[in-house]
Amino acid sequence: MHRTRVKIVADALDANETIARANREDFDRHSVAVVNLMSAPGAGKTTLLERALPGPGECRFGVLEGDVRGSLDADRLAALHLPVTQLNTEPAFGGECHLDANMVRSALGEVPLDDIDLLVVENVGNLVCPAEFSIGEDARAMIASVAEGEDKPLKYPLMFRACELVVVNKVDLLPHVDFDLDRFLANLDAVNPGAETILASARTGEGTDRFRDWLEAVAARTPAPAA
Amino acid sequence: MHRTRVKIVADALDANETIARANREDFDRHSVAVVNLMSAPGAGKTTLLERALPGPGECRFGVLEGDVRGSLDADRLAALHLPVTQLNTEPAFGGECHLDANMVRSALGEVPLDDIDLLVVENVGNLVCPAEFSIGEDARAMIASVAEGEDKPLKYPLMFRACELVVVNKVDLLPHVDFDLDRFLANLDAVNPGAETILASARTGEGTDRFRDWLEAVAARTPAPAA
Repeated sequence: MHRTRVKIVADALDANETIARANREDFDRHSVAVVNLMSAPGAGKTTLLERALPGPGECRFGVLEGDVRGSLDADRLAALHLPVTQLNTEPAFGGECHLDANMVRSALGEVPLDDIDLLVVENVGNLVCPAEFSIGEDARAMIASVAEGEDKPLKYPLMFRACELVVVNKVDLLPHVDFDLDRFLANLDAVNPGAETILASARTGEGTDRFRDWLEAVAARTPAPAA
Repeated sequence: MHRTRVKIVADALDANETIARANREDFDRHSVAVVNLMSAPGAGKTTLLERALPGPGECRFGVLEGDVRGSLDADRLAALHLPVTQLNTEPAFGGECHLDANMVRSALGEVPLDDIDLLVVENVGNLVCPAEFSIGEDARAMIASVAEGEDKPLKYPLMFRACELVVVNKVDLLPHVDFDLDRFLANLDAVNPGAETILASARTGEGTDRFRDWLEAVAARTPAPAA
């Protein structure tokens, strides 16, 4: 039974890679960089985007908002006057706990790729499965809240290893929680040596400019479309 | 493709129910009550158990500790001198983001069912998939941390609906976070009217005695084995 399951998973991931490449070609054709943003539920993805995206600068942002159900986050981000597209994993995809390349592909027709330079895909809140599925992105970032505890890199190593940036969010709560920042960083280093980190509080705004700078640097990696 | 996926999911859930019934029969034979404890990563499941299980009383507790990888939580709980069994979803089960009946069944041989009255199964930290899989439990409880935000019942309705008890944890952080408790309770009521709630702080100990009382009440539902 386990062997059968492993085969099914391997086939699914193989199909996912094929569709992710097709997404990648579409993004390249429109010269759009893509960031896959992941975290546990309630770590602060949407609040961080609310703070970081409206800043000054020439990079035109768009958001693809992944949720099991509802449009609470998309509604919040729409107030920023950015192109926001909602993608629900329920019911069309059976209430999946992550986005995969095919789900993203199904929504691309509604994303105005000609009008943006960088698309942030806000994944479903989950520290396990989203890390397994490429969606054709340029970079992966995750948010870890200090309220979650410093052991999380050791408990969810695939997620922490899959990301080049880890935003340590809610640092305004540090005086009020039992969170040893040095130990967290050592745990992160154990599973992903050299990962970039940003200390931030989406609530107070601390560090959100650095996150924006990082997004713009990802966008700058993408060459302009051929004339 | 979606129709195929829905069929696969339906078949998997059907098989899960069959195995869950077999677990149930084993639990009944040993007169053990079982609680399936779920939450997002870092909501405080292990800390709550550390506080609640060692209290006074005659109920003999055991814990089945589900994690993708590692035994950090089981090691913490072993200090309480309770029977703790570790169940990892990686590698045997492909790194699954939840426990299902078959995974629990694979670990039952190591759980001393004759020596306990109530088994707490600490599920993998995830607000989506664990709610879909019965493991043969008597009751389901979940923990929602106030750091996660008051919108979570609306975003993860299946999880909040699947549980008869919602522990609102980390209430010591209420002065430091933007969390409207009344709105959270209204959101919970919208998806699961009549759900029981306990306000708690596993860090300070507030409300953890009420959680223990609830566990003991679940144990009291289970009849003693036939002579």
